[in-house]
Amino acid sequence: MTAVITLTTDFGTRDPYVAEMKAVILHVNPAARFIDVSHEIAAHDVTEGALAVDAMVALCPEGTVHVAVVDPGVGTRRRGLVVESSGQVFVGPDNGIFTPILARSGWRAFELGSTAFRRPSVSATFHGRDVFAPAAAHLTLGIRAARFGPPVTDPVRLAPIATREVGGGVEGRVIHVDRFGNLVTSIDSETVERLSRGAGVLTVQIAAAGCRSC
Amino acid sequence: MTAVITLTTDFGTRDPYVAEMKAVILHVNPAARFIDVSHEIAAHDVTEGALAVDAMVALCPEGTVHVAVVDPGVGTRRRGLVVESSGQVFVGPDNGIFTPILARSGWRAFELGSTAFRRPSVSATFHGRDVFAPAAAHLTLGIRAARFGPPVTDPVRLAPIATREVGGGVEGRVIHVDRFGNLVTSIDSETVERLSRGAGVLTVQIAAAGCRSC
Amino acid sequence: MTAVITLTTDFGTRDPYVAEMKAVILHVNPAARFIDVSHEIAAHDVTEGALAVDAMVALCPEGTVHVAVVDPGVGTRRRGLVVESSGQVFVGPDNGIFTPILARSGWRAFELGSTAFRRPSVSATFHGRDVFAPAAAHLTLGIRAARFGPPVTDPVRLAPIATREVGGGVEGRVIHVDRFGNLVTSIDSETVERLSRGAGVLTVQIAAAGCRSC
Repeated sequence: MTAVITLTTDFGTRDPYVAEMKAVILHVNPAARFIDVSHEIAAHDVTEGALAVDAMVALCPEGTVHVAVVDPGVGTRRRGLVVESSGQVFVGPDNGIFTPILARSGWRAFELGSTAFRRPSVSATFHGRDVFAPAAAHLTLGIRAARFGPPVTDPVRLAPIATREVGGGVEGRVIHVDRFGNLVTSIDSETVERLSRGAGVLTVQIAAAGCRSC
Repeated sequence: MTAVITLTTDFGTRDPYVAEMKAVILHVNPAARFIDVSHEIAAHDVTEGALAVDAMVALCPEGTVHVAVVDPGVGTRRRGLVVESSGQVFVGPDNGIFTPILARSGWRAFELGSTAFRRPSVSATFHGRDVFAPAAAHLTLGIRAARFGPPVTDPVRLAPIATREVGGGVEGRVIHVDRFGNLVTSIDSETVERLSRGAGVLTVQIAAAGCRSC
Repeated sequence: MTAVITLTTDFGTRDPYVAEMKAVILHVNPAARFIDVSHEIAAHDVTEGALAVDAMVALCPEGTVHVAVVDPGVGTRRRGLVVESSGQVFVGPDNGIFTPILARSGWRAFELGSTAFRRPSVSATFHGRDVFAPAAAHLTLGIRAARFGPPVTDPVRLAPIATREVGGGVEGRVIHVDRFGNLVTSIDSETVERLSRGAGVLTVQIAAAGCRSC
């Protein structure tokens, strides 16, 4: 079986942090293959990280292990998670980064508690390298998620971004602007399709409501 | 046979777009290997993309498949292309990005028309993921270029950048400035060598003539 | 044996230079695996490159080949080096980039002199592609370091960054600031631990002393 590991972080690519994670993984499983999803998630922006990981699920082969490390709480008592869903596995901090995964049916989550599948010495500031990377590598070797720790039934979820239907239309928020200026909104495609059927044409109105960078 | 796929895009590396292409490819051919040529081609700059792809040809192993997606015309009726040349294969939009490839002798081009080798649902804005990536993956599995569609004899070419010989010298344009300040010009190395033999020393004059960023 | 090659350069990722190195490597050894350590080392900043390479050594599998190309002296008479240390091999210019490697015991260095393991034509400006990449690829095929040239006993080393103990404390320099604002200093962890045992708490004082970007 091909062992594909996707990596989503806010580490940037100037420092060797992502490379350190890959070295740890190849040490455990020399056959692992990497897909870098993004390492330019805005620092500590769990929502942006969640969207990036979610975009991969429908496209990746069965058995893919997704490592997501946008982790402002590293070094605190926040839990680590292993989540199984859709025949794929997700590894990262329990801070809401897997919210879209947990919105699908049929997930099982476990606390990343066992010390058997981590580096002998765990830094207080780099669980990506010392906890999540070796966990992902062991998962690609066939170690079952349940072996990492006790089940978690209350994983942290991000608050849903409010959308509301207003006079035959719908009001939501722009949650991401990509390199080409495409806007990703909080309005799901089902809502757009349902409203489109009635109207034929949808008018989009964008109003300023405060943003991160202005 | 090693299945090497090079990727040249203007997608940037913050959004998961490149990763989505790689996931699609590994789904079709789990043995594919990637070389990221550049994902920081200036948005919609077909010329810069063409130069980057061209730089790879002399260095890549036989059978390499090059995917180039700088695609301002995505969603219009512009064609997709599969080009065979120099024992390698090139996949991307028919917008001139393969101009340097088509300047070599012995190429064969085909329209990327068959729906057999694309994703079941094709987005109007992301042919990189839905058309070009799966085409590249199938090419590495041994599917012949001719099976993707009818021959194309008139692929789009970029207008040549004028150079002219002036009083024992040659006048061209700076077409790229790299990270170190090296200037790439439109003057080919044969011309420089020919003129050098006469002169011993070449004097370079650079004159402002309008540029993209000033 | 898995052939892992790490790559550390100041080439950036916009131009195809890193991709050209990878193509050369895969041409020689199609089984080579890459870890990109960083390609955003500040241009010509040998110290930053040295720190990045050093961070990888403890984490990489035995036999890993590290290519480091921060090379302001390319095209001059500076030597190329192959260094064996800690069961791993290091390839790059002899300009101090391997200073932390040479601070460990048991290294052996050789001049990268043989023309047998380089590209037939060597550019004056791109030894990364024409000399260091093919050397690394051949090393992963089992070619011994000693076959590349004569032993080097006086490799170039960077001047140590002064730290001095002052009144029960220690004074050093901040040598790197990462994306999250973490400061890397010239003070080693042994010194910190030794002083901590006495004091229980360490106070950190940071004073401006000129910096690269201000």
